[in-house]
Amino acid sequence: MQSDRQRHGFASDNTAGICPEAWSALEQANADYYPSYGEDRWTQQLTKAVCELFETECLVQVVFNGTAANALALAALCQSFHSVICHQLSHIQTDECGAPEFFSKGGRLVGIGGEAGKIDLDQAAAIITEQHGVHSHKPRAISITQATELGTVYQREEIERVCEFARSRNMFVHMDGARFANAIASLRCAPKSVTWELGADALCFGGTKNGLAAGELVIFFNRELAHEFDYRAKQGGQLASKTRFLAAPWIALLTDNLWVRNAEFANNAAATLSKRLQVEAGLHPIFPVEANAVFLRLSNELVAGIQTGGWQFYKFVEPDVYRLMCSWATTEKDIEEFVTDVTSIVRSS
Amino acid sequence: MQSDRQRHGFASDNTAGICPEAWSALEQANADYYPSYGEDRWTQQLTKAVCELFETECLVQVVFNGTAANALALAALCQSFHSVICHQLSHIQTDECGAPEFFSKGGRLVGIGGEAGKIDLDQAAAIITEQHGVHSHKPRAISITQATELGTVYQREEIERVCEFARSRNMFVHMDGARFANAIASLRCAPKSVTWELGADALCFGGTKNGLAAGELVIFFNRELAHEFDYRAKQGGQLASKTRFLAAPWIALLTDNLWVRNAEFANNAAATLSKRLQVEAGLHPIFPVEANAVFLRLSNELVAGIQTGGWQFYKFVEPDVYRLMCSWATTEKDIEEFVTDVTSIVRSS
Amino acid sequence: MQSDRQRHGFASDNTAGICPEAWSALEQANADYYPSYGEDRWTQQLTKAVCELFETECLVQVVFNGTAANALALAALCQSFHSVICHQLSHIQTDECGAPEFFSKGGRLVGIGGEAGKIDLDQAAAIITEQHGVHSHKPRAISITQATELGTVYQREEIERVCEFARSRNMFVHMDGARFANAIASLRCAPKSVTWELGADALCFGGTKNGLAAGELVIFFNRELAHEFDYRAKQGGQLASKTRFLAAPWIALLTDNLWVRNAEFANNAAATLSKRLQVEAGLHPIFPVEANAVFLRLSNELVAGIQTGGWQFYKFVEPDVYRLMCSWATTEKDIEEFVTDVTSIVRSS
Amino acid sequence: MQSDRQRHGFASDNTAGICPEAWSALEQANADYYPSYGEDRWTQQLTKAVCELFETECLVQVVFNGTAANALALAALCQSFHSVICHQLSHIQTDECGAPEFFSKGGRLVGIGGEAGKIDLDQAAAIITEQHGVHSHKPRAISITQATELGTVYQREEIERVCEFARSRNMFVHMDGARFANAIASLRCAPKSVTWELGADALCFGGTKNGLAAGELVIFFNRELAHEFDYRAKQGGQLASKTRFLAAPWIALLTDNLWVRNAEFANNAAATLSKRLQVEAGLHPIFPVEANAVFLRLSNELVAGIQTGGWQFYKFVEPDVYRLMCSWATTEKDIEEFVTDVTSIVRSS
Repeated sequence: MQSDRQRHGFASDNTAGICPEAWSALEQANADYYPSYGEDRWTQQLTKAVCELFETECLVQVVFNGTAANALALAALCQSFHSVICHQLSHIQTDECGAPEFFSKGGRLVGIGGEAGKIDLDQAAAIITEQHGVHSHKPRAISITQATELGTVYQREEIERVCEFARSRNMFVHMDGARFANAIASLRCAPKSVTWELGADALCFGGTKNGLAAGELVIFFNRELAHEFDYRAKQGGQLASKTRFLAAPWIALLTDNLWVRNAEFANNAAATLSKRLQVEAGLHPIFPVEANAVFLRLSNELVAGIQTGGWQFYKFVEPDVYRLMCSWATTEKDIEEFVTDVTSIVRSS
Repeated sequence: MQSDRQRHGFASDNTAGICPEAWSALEQANADYYPSYGEDRWTQQLTKAVCELFETECLVQVVFNGTAANALALAALCQSFHSVICHQLSHIQTDECGAPEFFSKGGRLVGIGGEAGKIDLDQAAAIITEQHGVHSHKPRAISITQATELGTVYQREEIERVCEFARSRNMFVHMDGARFANAIASLRCAPKSVTWELGADALCFGGTKNGLAAGELVIFFNRELAHEFDYRAKQGGQLASKTRFLAAPWIALLTDNLWVRNAEFANNAAATLSKRLQVEAGLHPIFPVEANAVFLRLSNELVAGIQTGGWQFYKFVEPDVYRLMCSWATTEKDIEEFVTDVTSIVRSS
Repeated sequence: MQSDRQRHGFASDNTAGICPEAWSALEQANADYYPSYGEDRWTQQLTKAVCELFETECLVQVVFNGTAANALALAALCQSFHSVICHQLSHIQTDECGAPEFFSKGGRLVGIGGEAGKIDLDQAAAIITEQHGVHSHKPRAISITQATELGTVYQREEIERVCEFARSRNMFVHMDGARFANAIASLRCAPKSVTWELGADALCFGGTKNGLAAGELVIFFNRELAHEFDYRAKQGGQLASKTRFLAAPWIALLTDNLWVRNAEFANNAAATLSKRLQVEAGLHPIFPVEANAVFLRLSNELVAGIQTGGWQFYKFVEPDVYRLMCSWATTEKDIEEFVTDVTSIVRSS
Repeated sequence: MQSDRQRHGFASDNTAGICPEAWSALEQANADYYPSYGEDRWTQQLTKAVCELFETECLVQVVFNGTAANALALAALCQSFHSVICHQLSHIQTDECGAPEFFSKGGRLVGIGGEAGKIDLDQAAAIITEQHGVHSHKPRAISITQATELGTVYQREEIERVCEFARSRNMFVHMDGARFANAIASLRCAPKSVTWELGADALCFGGTKNGLAAGELVIFFNRELAHEFDYRAKQGGQLASKTRFLAAPWIALLTDNLWVRNAEFANNAAATLSKRLQVEAGLHPIFPVEANAVFLRLSNELVAGIQTGGWQFYKFVEPDVYRLMCSWATTEKDIEEFVTDVTSIVRSS
């Protein structure tokens, strides 16, 4: 029997709302008149806070969403005749309707394989070798997703290898950090140690999946690449007039390490969910659960059964790999109810 | 003596915050998990509400800001080799850093003159005649701003003439309605009677200046032009993941005519401000005060004096035309303080 | 011992020059003043000649080269948020430096596999199914190369299947006919029977590889798609001022079936070359020799030996597949010399 | 009585054909197989010849036409959020269907006034001052046409002022030299002395109007701006496969100063034409005849009369300014016939 209500808690980490601290920040920013287009106090403070967090001078631009963040950053790194090496399951390749190609006005994404969502550098090297001069796009950047789309996390040494690979080929390193917080919560290291210290040039640092209504940061560690990026963002339709409503919640997120705590909470929820599904329902995760996602191979029957209970979640890789996402908002009750439903279906089949 | 605090209340209608009803809507939308990317109940309801408001079937897409709304709408109307006739002081021409050209991938804006911010159709006709076949961009759309950037409002007959002009030349009509609410509050007519009934093809309907944190509606009355517009918006970085936080406040705005009431409030504030400045300080508005803006010709000395009090406002047309904006949030106290300051400076000089 | 001279006769069909008839046409067009930008008599006549050749009304635009022809045609078929299904070895995918993406300003080419350079429609169907709404480019066209990059020719029934595939998915069919002449010389059929009669929407008809200095035709059978294509070509930098020097040689090519005769000559040369290499040197073509190319699997030693004689030719597929091209200019002596050289190296090894 | 034949000799300098020396060069280049895509001997030699001509190291790319040359060069100088200051009658502004906007993907041309086709730097300065940060395109280049569209020639000091103007504002200088040869023939100076020595960054050097079938050179004196320009040209559809047919005639043009001699011939023809029209028909040129154009103010009756004789020529500025162009091919007979016709009409009216 189909449940009356739909339950979206595990469908994505963007089905959750605004976390309490971000909400308070919105309330404060709403108290008076403030200047627009980035001249407000929060936007001004944001760059300072990010520089402190990353322990370096960097350029920071807050934009509305992750698709725009990635596309604008890649457009700053690449000309229209350049290509970007990325994983074939990366968000930029599969989920942004060609925004990177559009904002670079003709750039190409070269999607390649690799275990558990991480780029196989040998494949990357082989493909780069196949390019032939002006007849091909010139490979100019490599983009990695941290945490990956498959819920795994690049370790420091892995990022180091990516950066060395890029540097030796005169390419830039872009990091899609829609879930950068989850990666840091997993790695428990200083943000700088897995970004610019290794050679990453630009990071898209996600807030939406970590408790905000909207708002992602484009951060350039390589400030030469950031030249006139404010113009690029404005022309690209990504300069809010009331910037304070994007910046103030970000300040809240960066205060007292809330961004890591929110992410840690989500990661722990995923770990619990995965463990319980394994123990109670015999469902083993097919990728290491290192961030806030659990990937399972599920039969059509099982999927149908779970969905009957109103649970929403997505098939991620054909033909039978499904994704469950946790967030800062996932409750023990959510997990309890989901595991109970799944377990009962498994046992009765 | 320079004031300790800056006062942004009249600098723009986007220095105001989120109106109470929109705030409540945000709160409600934050109560649970909801599906993302437009599948939430508010976004679904929004199209219905807009169709009812305009009393016709239309396509509605909510995007983050006005620059994106205009640029995406014009890109749907025009190919890269088309041009858009607009007023030389229009926002698309002077304040969007070329977003219309960027999203249309090379389209041109042809800025022309006209009294009080309204396009001079004779000039438009002359310029169109000068184009010479494939050597020129082909004029394809005319864009008017309602209310205009100079605080005036196109009357029904004026829009009718614009639409006839366009229709007779096989051109489309785009309306930048960043302050459409202020225009309707001024005209006191049914929205349909000054849009699609006259032949307007697309309207960018602004919410940000009328009490929202962000969120503008692109509305296509000509639904053929709207074909696959959802793809265009997504690729353009304008599909929010948590769409409910854009849509729910819009629903609030459309409920019980709040959008008109907020705008009426702002218009009345401008009328009061203008009248008092005229009577008490002898400053006459240089354009009819039909919406929420007051334009004054001010001497450098007077401007310096006012700014010393912390008041922020902008020069709008060289060399000496300044703009004062009111909003849903403008208080009697704001007006009282400003008029008092100005009057005392005028009298002492 | 490295030969003193380099021999480019088999490197490509564009190492050959201008055929005698085209040369005479250039001479004639050079005799007087003629109007520019397409108003000359040859350009005017060209459309008529092409319509007669294809036995239908069609739009014809002559552009400078094949890359521009393909890119402009695809840009007319596709929006920036559309994708084009093509073979992974197709010229648009591997050799145009992203011109199709640039001219469509963000479109994507989806390269898929298939035997002997022909698209595998099952793979195409599978990939189209994987797209998920506005998050993906929307597949809008399928592009086939006729003759293919691997020297094979789509038979009528194969094109029919491609067209049916496209039609059933609301997609357009683009044909890269850089060597369309070679295909027709091979199929010995009416041009219409393998193009618009089956449902092809646009054909890029190549002249450069068939005896011209430059000049390719973009032909729209689907004239709705051709709307304002002249503007698109002009803005894309593809409207010559002295159009007569592109059009007059094309008229020559279309006169007395010269385009087919030139191609037949090239095809025959390839057949002879292939047969002699097989018989005399024991080298078997790895794809059917249906047009003017011969593909061979060659050892590094053999390649080095041949190149020592000054012969230039290209590796086409990693690791060891090489391409030999014939043209309207290939002489018996060219073939004799090449086969003799190869045979002597093979025998001595 | 309308003449049976149309006479295009004075309509444009691109109604003339290929000059004898260029024709011979084509013939030579057609004698054998040669490598393609710029690997042929002429293309290789061309860069060397241009560097010698300009007495400096520079990057040279040969492209098909002037529209592409200008658009690609400007795209190398400017990002999509940059603007180019140019004369309101400049070819890039009025005759290229937005190619500069298209290739720069959204850049803007800011057309300003100025006497006799030369930019008024005071107007330029005023407009640049009006830009306001990220809300406006950022002025990044100034483009001058040499010789101008009105048949005048910038003197050395004038170019110096333009270059100083640009340098002091961190802007680049682009020179549209579709008729650069005519300017040099007029100035009788070393090419370097009116280009890079003064600070010009890029020059589009025209061949088509000076005796070639097609082919313009994009020359970067500022070689940093030329970085990867070969990719840009290829992606833009401007890399010919049979490059030798563009390069060989250019070599001919650069040999023994033919490019200057051809231009001198055209300039002299214009001077003669202008003088005779003045003396014999009382028609005074309205701009100084410094290159190969003569501009006249003509009544509708006179125009109609001349056209009855089959003569083609264009109105250039509304309402009554007409242009007559001479070229390397203009004969004394052409001039004689034209002047005779005009004079007889003038006298009989």
